[in-house]
Amino acid sequence: MTFLKNTWYVACRTNEIEGKPLGRKICNESMVIFRGANNEVSALEDFCPHRGAPLSLGFARGGNLVCGYHGLEVGTDGRCAKMVGQRVGGFPTVKRYPAVERYGFIWVWPGDAEQADPAAIPHYEWGVSDEWAYDGGMYHVKCDYRLMIDNLMDLTHETYVHSTSIGQDEIEEAPPETTVDGHTVITSRHMKNIKAPPFWASALRANGLDGDVPCDRWQICRFTPPSHVMIDVGVAHAGKGGFDAAPEHKAGSIVVDFITPETETSIWYFWGMARNFRPQDTELTDMIRKGQGGIFAEDQEMLESQQRNLSTWPERQLLKLNIDSGGVQSRKILDRLIQEELANKAERK
Amino acid sequence: MTFLKNTWYVACRTNEIEGKPLGRKICNESMVIFRGANNEVSALEDFCPHRGAPLSLGFARGGNLVCGYHGLEVGTDGRCAKMVGQRVGGFPTVKRYPAVERYGFIWVWPGDAEQADPAAIPHYEWGVSDEWAYDGGMYHVKCDYRLMIDNLMDLTHETYVHSTSIGQDEIEEAPPETTVDGHTVITSRHMKNIKAPPFWASALRANGLDGDVPCDRWQICRFTPPSHVMIDVGVAHAGKGGFDAAPEHKAGSIVVDFITPETETSIWYFWGMARNFRPQDTELTDMIRKGQGGIFAEDQEMLESQQRNLSTWPERQLLKLNIDSGGVQSRKILDRLIQEELANKAERK
Amino acid sequence: MTFLKNTWYVACRTNEIEGKPLGRKICNESMVIFRGANNEVSALEDFCPHRGAPLSLGFARGGNLVCGYHGLEVGTDGRCAKMVGQRVGGFPTVKRYPAVERYGFIWVWPGDAEQADPAAIPHYEWGVSDEWAYDGGMYHVKCDYRLMIDNLMDLTHETYVHSTSIGQDEIEEAPPETTVDGHTVITSRHMKNIKAPPFWASALRANGLDGDVPCDRWQICRFTPPSHVMIDVGVAHAGKGGFDAAPEHKAGSIVVDFITPETETSIWYFWGMARNFRPQDTELTDMIRKGQGGIFAEDQEMLESQQRNLSTWPERQLLKLNIDSGGVQSRKILDRLIQEELANKAERK
Repeated sequence: MTFLKNTWYVACRTNEIEGKPLGRKICNESMVIFRGANNEVSALEDFCPHRGAPLSLGFARGGNLVCGYHGLEVGTDGRCAKMVGQRVGGFPTVKRYPAVERYGFIWVWPGDAEQADPAAIPHYEWGVSDEWAYDGGMYHVKCDYRLMIDNLMDLTHETYVHSTSIGQDEIEEAPPETTVDGHTVITSRHMKNIKAPPFWASALRANGLDGDVPCDRWQICRFTPPSHVMIDVGVAHAGKGGFDAAPEHKAGSIVVDFITPETETSIWYFWGMARNFRPQDTELTDMIRKGQGGIFAEDQEMLESQQRNLSTWPERQLLKLNIDSGGVQSRKILDRLIQEELANKAERK
Repeated sequence: MTFLKNTWYVACRTNEIEGKPLGRKICNESMVIFRGANNEVSALEDFCPHRGAPLSLGFARGGNLVCGYHGLEVGTDGRCAKMVGQRVGGFPTVKRYPAVERYGFIWVWPGDAEQADPAAIPHYEWGVSDEWAYDGGMYHVKCDYRLMIDNLMDLTHETYVHSTSIGQDEIEEAPPETTVDGHTVITSRHMKNIKAPPFWASALRANGLDGDVPCDRWQICRFTPPSHVMIDVGVAHAGKGGFDAAPEHKAGSIVVDFITPETETSIWYFWGMARNFRPQDTELTDMIRKGQGGIFAEDQEMLESQQRNLSTWPERQLLKLNIDSGGVQSRKILDRLIQEELANKAERK
Repeated sequence: MTFLKNTWYVACRTNEIEGKPLGRKICNESMVIFRGANNEVSALEDFCPHRGAPLSLGFARGGNLVCGYHGLEVGTDGRCAKMVGQRVGGFPTVKRYPAVERYGFIWVWPGDAEQADPAAIPHYEWGVSDEWAYDGGMYHVKCDYRLMIDNLMDLTHETYVHSTSIGQDEIEEAPPETTVDGHTVITSRHMKNIKAPPFWASALRANGLDGDVPCDRWQICRFTPPSHVMIDVGVAHAGKGGFDAAPEHKAGSIVVDFITPETETSIWYFWGMARNFRPQDTELTDMIRKGQGGIFAEDQEMLESQQRNLSTWPERQLLKLNIDSGGVQSRKILDRLIQEELANKAERK
């Protein structure tokens, strides 16, 4: 097994289930996600017990999910609720996956439903506070989810993959530092007295600051299981304290990355950016989303090509340099948790 | 084995072999279908004994099929007839499949040629009588042919899959009745005193009748092996006798379905409609074909999604409700005939 | 094994590596081909030892190939030359494939590098002399490379596959003659007193000659291992000596075919034409390339269909007629050389 199943993953953004159910495979589980009574979200196995049609081709009605083939109605609990002309009492129950709506996303638990605790979904201040604005998008990428974690925990690649926007030589010249705190891995990089790259010069200006003066730049990547990477990024006018500078001297934000395995070699990648300056400025929000969307699309070809290479040569050992430490430590934590999950599963049997 | 081979299947419509041979896989047999001398149809294995090129890339000339690579000519009997500069006497013979032209279709027998009897092709009055008009089309659908039989033997799905044209709530509210007569399965449904759905209201009007008054509607599905489903459908003004009403009170027709397996999980689906009112009205014929083509295309996504689900979970047992009885009985007959064919084959060895 | 590895293959035309590296699979070896210092060409395995990304997504700089993911620099010898912030001394070396630039192509040796000798690349006068013009193109075709050799060593197919341009009945009516000279197979065909087909009538005119008078036509196909086929083709006014006629009576050229296996069932097919009349006339060169490109594209569907048939029926024996003798003899030489290569490999172990 290469991913955790007893954990919460982002399954979709809330706008993906507006007006119709969504079929999506998460950790090899085929799910249909929809809103039942009182708009509550629900995730079920995407298989109608009547003739095996995907329930995601149906529609929600009166709190139930109606199969689009012959009309069997399934409740949010997975029980067959009704079918015209039939007694559904003895019909098999559809497998249910715990689902929770939070921060504009639907979160699902692909593993053992009994162990699901909504309190285990991390708290994100940007997701609940009016002082923050958030927006982003989703990409389907054909790679092992851990390649995306590696990518986000080593921003050296910005110099190469994103050379025209956020990349600059100073990134690779500043050695990163990686620390582990429980299940959290933190890789930080600080660049002093540099020129702000195009994206950040533009962000300084959007923030009412001069974009052409020397700056201090930071990148603080935080991995938490199963596959969330939050990255503090930004620039401050040089000498004002960098990441710790007062708000009037800097432009910063949080890159928000939720990586959800579809299969062993494909992911649903939810990317976005949260900021706590001018949070009501929706034009700025749009501009940032478009800019970020373009930049993050640049990773796709690289990651899919890398995956093809690794699938061709599965036995090859890769290098583990200091810059790779964030990914290496994240994988260690994952390996340990996956082993625990397997042991826990064996024990419960 | 999931399908019969010692039986007649529709391979193509006659217009598909106009002016050029057609390559088509039927029950896993790669065939080339073409017209030889006197326009007689012939089906051969689509493999040139010279260098293995598909004969279907060639052309017919002087009653023979000429390979489009180096010109080997094969007769309708599969024997190598001629090749410039070569003595073809010792060339291997190409496998021949019995082929018959009837009702505007080419029928082929993918199994043991010795057992093929053209008299076993069913008689269809609509196919030979001037009092009937027929037209239709063909879809390639990636599903087990039996899923299409199920689909056609349980029209409950019209309420859901075809809700904007021929579907209506009254269908699922009227329980169907299934009977078996030898190798024929009949599933009937009668709806009394209902509003005609859009397709049928329009057909009543095309027939010079009021489309807005209460009607009696019928659906009588007839399965015969290997995979033909003829469905009597129509509406009559209420109280005039339904299916048995006099012609001036009703609009009815036969939905004609020939389902030909390509592989275990894909089919050539020949759909069409035959009617015995205004048979010379070619505009009406066109209008019906277009309408039916649009409606029948709605099944494709559902059947292919269902097939993907069943391929993912091959061990799952599906429900067998009263509405499924037509499909269930049809499969029973097929299972028995397939067993007989296998036993017969073993015996002949 | 179906192809030789200890031999030179054409990997690409030089314009394919202009300004950026090229990723290409040759004989199942994934290569990146690029120019290093002094414009020298180099071929390496397309796998960065750092994180497995394809090096072909990177760029050349200062004589090295820079990985486009995190900037590891590899020299043309495959050794890791440099990486910002890293000591690369202990990094693994990337596999190198011998590469040579010649005749406007990059040639690579996918097998044992120690045995590679640039002197083994054949001499082609058209590739080095100002008295000749050469141009051509490349097609990716999904077939065993030997099917393309068969195709080119038996031009009978022109009558059928290229009937509107270079094909004519007289081709198949003239029996070819095949001789073997060491590792070279020669299949010749001479047609006397015929009408020039469209392509050649046009070439006669381009050469200032009457295209409508009776001609003698020749086709002399020369196979040499691993998979080069050079074909002398042309027409002379009838009775002037055919292939041996004086230049003022004929239009002739060499069809140049380099066939490079990508995998067992796909090839990079480099086709072109070399001529020694009006070599400076670039308009004529363009016209010929466009004409040839159109004609040679006609083979693609046939070869790919043939391959699908042969993959479906791998055990079938094909016919070996006199017209097939060129291909049959070529395969015999290949089989022998492949056996020798395998024996040689076993011995070296």
